Amino acid sequence: MSTAISEKYQDLLSWDKRAFANLALSLKDGTPHVTPLWFDYDGEYVILNSARGRVKDKAMRRSGLVAMAISDPKNPYRYIQIRGRVVEITEEGAREMIDHLSMKYTGGPYDGYGGEIRVTYKFVPDLISCMG
Amino acid sequence: MSTAISEKYQDLLSWDKRAFANLALSLKDGTPHVTPLWFDYDGEYVILNSARGRVKDKAMRRSGLVAMAISDPKNPYRYIQIRGRVVEITEEGAREMIDHLSMKYTGGPYDGYGGEIRVTYKFVPDLISCMG
Repeated sequence: MSTAISEKYQDLLSWDKRAFANLALSLKDGTPHVTPLWFDYDGEYVILNSARGRVKDKAMRRSGLVAMAISDPKNPYRYIQIRGRVVEITEEGAREMIDHLSMKYTGGPYDGYGGEIRVTYKFVPDLISCMG
Repeated sequence: MSTAISEKYQDLLSWDKRAFANLALSLKDGTPHVTPLWFDYDGEYVILNSARGRVKDKAMRRSGLVAMAISDPKNPYRYIQIRGRVVEITEEGAREMIDHLSMKYTGGPYDGYGGEIRVTYKFVPDLISCMG
């Protein structure tokens, strides 16, 4: 366990790698929840984006505790787990942020709007564990 | 949400697909935890294997609540999330079980024994959600 992301694993968080995060959250009754999703990392914060009212949104607003596993798309035995606490939740610029994430993963703007209110979450990597 | 695994997604649980599960657990203080790992599904139970004393082992013994996301290795936008409660924890046959899982993923027996005591966990898929 560490609180710094070793250089050896920074590629997993890079724009070019386009690796998905598997985001784990604990629901109100303690039930774990996990879904793959897009993320970005700006060197300080991990940035996530969801929509108001979703399970992820509610769980991050309630406890703020998050864990995510990022596996190398070319080698599933190589991964990093990052744990932390959400320090910023905002709807400001959140539509632009999902377009930004979409550029990373699809090369184009996000095409999934359906009247949803997008939300951006930022957390600082806290506990890091690596494998492979 | 459903409690049955739709035929459309059963391939993600198959022996041939060799998809990893991202297993999410809630730790004692509510912190989420997530790691990729091997699994098997016998049509009734999801079968996991870890070692005595590990974070995963402790969390599954404590609450028994698990969630796992399984993504299609060829299409990260296609995945299934399975939630449930561990109903069986046993050390009996657990070394054989990790060899069995290793056969699925590597084609050979497990080569990672280091004096560890292997443990097998079984849970029934309870809540299912699918995407893609």
